Amino acid sequence: MENNRRADSIWADIQRIRAEAPLVHNITNYVVMNTTANALLALGASPVMAHAEEEVEEMAAIARALVVNIGTLSPPWIAAMFKAGGVAKRNARPIILDPVGAGATTFRTETARSPMEELAPEIVRGNASEIRALAYDERSTRGVDSAHAPEDAASAAEALSRRSHGVVVTSGAVDLILSDGATDRVFNGHPMMARVTGMGCTASALAGAFAAVNPSTRDAAVNAMAVMGIAGELAAGRSPGPGTFVPQFLDALYLLTESDIRERLKVTES
Amino acid sequence: MENNRRADSIWADIQRIRAEAPLVHNITNYVVMNTTANALLALGASPVMAHAEEEVEEMAAIARALVVNIGTLSPPWIAAMFKAGGVAKRNARPIILDPVGAGATTFRTETARSPMEELAPEIVRGNASEIRALAYDERSTRGVDSAHAPEDAASAAEALSRRSHGVVVTSGAVDLILSDGATDRVFNGHPMMARVTGMGCTASALAGAFAAVNPSTRDAAVNAMAVMGIAGELAAGRSPGPGTFVPQFLDALYLLTESDIRERLKVTES
Amino acid sequence: MENNRRADSIWADIQRIRAEAPLVHNITNYVVMNTTANALLALGASPVMAHAEEEVEEMAAIARALVVNIGTLSPPWIAAMFKAGGVAKRNARPIILDPVGAGATTFRTETARSPMEELAPEIVRGNASEIRALAYDERSTRGVDSAHAPEDAASAAEALSRRSHGVVVTSGAVDLILSDGATDRVFNGHPMMARVTGMGCTASALAGAFAAVNPSTRDAAVNAMAVMGIAGELAAGRSPGPGTFVPQFLDALYLLTESDIRERLKVTES
Repeated sequence: MENNRRADSIWADIQRIRAEAPLVHNITNYVVMNTTANALLALGASPVMAHAEEEVEEMAAIARALVVNIGTLSPPWIAAMFKAGGVAKRNARPIILDPVGAGATTFRTETARSPMEELAPEIVRGNASEIRALAYDERSTRGVDSAHAPEDAASAAEALSRRSHGVVVTSGAVDLILSDGATDRVFNGHPMMARVTGMGCTASALAGAFAAVNPSTRDAAVNAMAVMGIAGELAAGRSPGPGTFVPQFLDALYLLTESDIRERLKVTES
Repeated sequence: MENNRRADSIWADIQRIRAEAPLVHNITNYVVMNTTANALLALGASPVMAHAEEEVEEMAAIARALVVNIGTLSPPWIAAMFKAGGVAKRNARPIILDPVGAGATTFRTETARSPMEELAPEIVRGNASEIRALAYDERSTRGVDSAHAPEDAASAAEALSRRSHGVVVTSGAVDLILSDGATDRVFNGHPMMARVTGMGCTASALAGAFAAVNPSTRDAAVNAMAVMGIAGELAAGRSPGPGTFVPQFLDALYLLTESDIRERLKVTES
Repeated sequence: MENNRRADSIWADIQRIRAEAPLVHNITNYVVMNTTANALLALGASPVMAHAEEEVEEMAAIARALVVNIGTLSPPWIAAMFKAGGVAKRNARPIILDPVGAGATTFRTETARSPMEELAPEIVRGNASEIRALAYDERSTRGVDSAHAPEDAASAAEALSRRSHGVVVTSGAVDLILSDGATDRVFNGHPMMARVTGMGCTASALAGAFAAVNPSTRDAAVNAMAVMGIAGELAAGRSPGPGTFVPQFLDALYLLTESDIRERLKVTES
């Protein structure tokens, strides 16, 4: 897909999200809940954060996508994650998995691996260390940051994608989106995004919104990463530091125009 | 109460809040905790967030109002909510209930209904779908957003108010405040407020601060909704999108002057 | 240490933090998680928030400092706090304790006292009411705000420091840093910092970053408080209210220069 057709696809998705306000169910971590909810709202989607075992099945049943993020999990949340995931699976709703910090501790790696196997998420998005941990059980010593560039995780992503039959996004300076043998690369983005907590989690949440309106999970993943990157570039141009970056990033998502996308989009496929 | 006397009442409350910094105890959801704490501080109140069963009774005993919000509840928090509510009741401190997402799942509707019956909150504030769910058990499919305008919930609010003998606020483009047969309407506000997470929860938190200093719960509820709406208008005039809106909203609460209120206030009563 | 040598020490620490991005493990409260993670990132450190009992020991083992904050604790988090603290102790990693709200409830005072005794934190940072509660069991009625100025807690801080053999920071308009008989005072800061939630928690988190790179815990504590105060002054100069203050504060941490420090630093020692 060349840049023009990719821009068409992104803009069509954004228009659908703004028109339909798809309900996106998030089981996510405490640190980023506010930011990801606001990012989904700014994009035009309708976020709901619900993790109680007593209600996640009903919530998943009315939502159009489920985003599962293991950033600050504890055992009851894991049970909720599987309950919600089971419903999403039965209803053929897309599941997005964010394995935050996989590789940093055994608990996180295992917590990320079991939904990977049992729920076969349509999209997994992590940094290179997280993707390597999921594929190879590799240990990391950087907490939730990556010690690797996305290209270092290319074969890990391929192995994972073969196992899950889903899309694997390895995000970083250049994002790699691997699906069924094809590889898309998104060159948009800005280094300031690494100085703010929750940008990766926000990418996963936005992937939920795109997957809610686009039946191609590959397109949904590429479009979400491109929109993240373009909004990041726009925001970085208006903020000297990471504090003012976040409000500007949310404004950029809200104000995003077709020409912002056409002028800035930098993707390749192979 | 005509606009001038309402403005007097609002300004008197704000001055008392700024002078006394009433302690407002919040048992609220993870998504908005930071925003509601900052909004209470910006207004001049002193927020405390405490949900552990071991301490909520002591905390409620020193607080001047209790705000209970079911946004991301799980069973231990529900137990804490009743313990804190019992103390507030015995000490004749006002209780504000925010039934976030009531109607979206059975668990939430029930979780919102039991304090409604057992604690008889002085003020309930929800959107139209939440108020209808509390009154009629009606199901909603919009998650935490409303599928209805406040006027669609007018008879539901009346039924609820009769049962609880309290004030029922249905917020939306126009806020309806129902109490003892009287209906106040607040026309202040801005559509940007719906593109930010936690504005409803913030309204409930501010109602706690007003109820802490104003013995009329009707006045406290109307005044809180008017201040929310006016601060929202001021902030929207200074921000192109929802990201920059939030910091501007908090600044507006902090900087609010008597003339801001007199010039902008739009309320009616019937 | 006169102002020039203190400025040298601060600037050397900042350069090390920016170069090494030390991993700081936080077990902290829901209200401020996002703010403290962003503050650590803005300063140049690498934050990780992890509280599950299943993983805190592994996380503490790869981190260079542990920050324990009791702002919204419940029993499972307390167990995690001791597990993580045990590992940090065995690995000779600095532990920073933030006794948020100690004195407001018996549960909080006790929850803060047991790690004080069992983990002997290298640095304790609280407001005057919290430090008095830890030392004397004194009750407070202001929730998480202080009813006292730091100087009112001077002898309490001394008693605590004698018991823990650690540094005791009492923060307020003037911060007192007590260690082994010496008292440093930091005069930097701005009243706006008291109108924002989480500034105290952020100070404790930054103390973790400084303690990760500076073997003198006294220097780490003084340097962290000075950087908080200077960033607060810079931010207050660029924001009319507490809403815009927070993003400006994070930008100030990120953009902090050697001359900002040399020009503004106001510390004394005795």
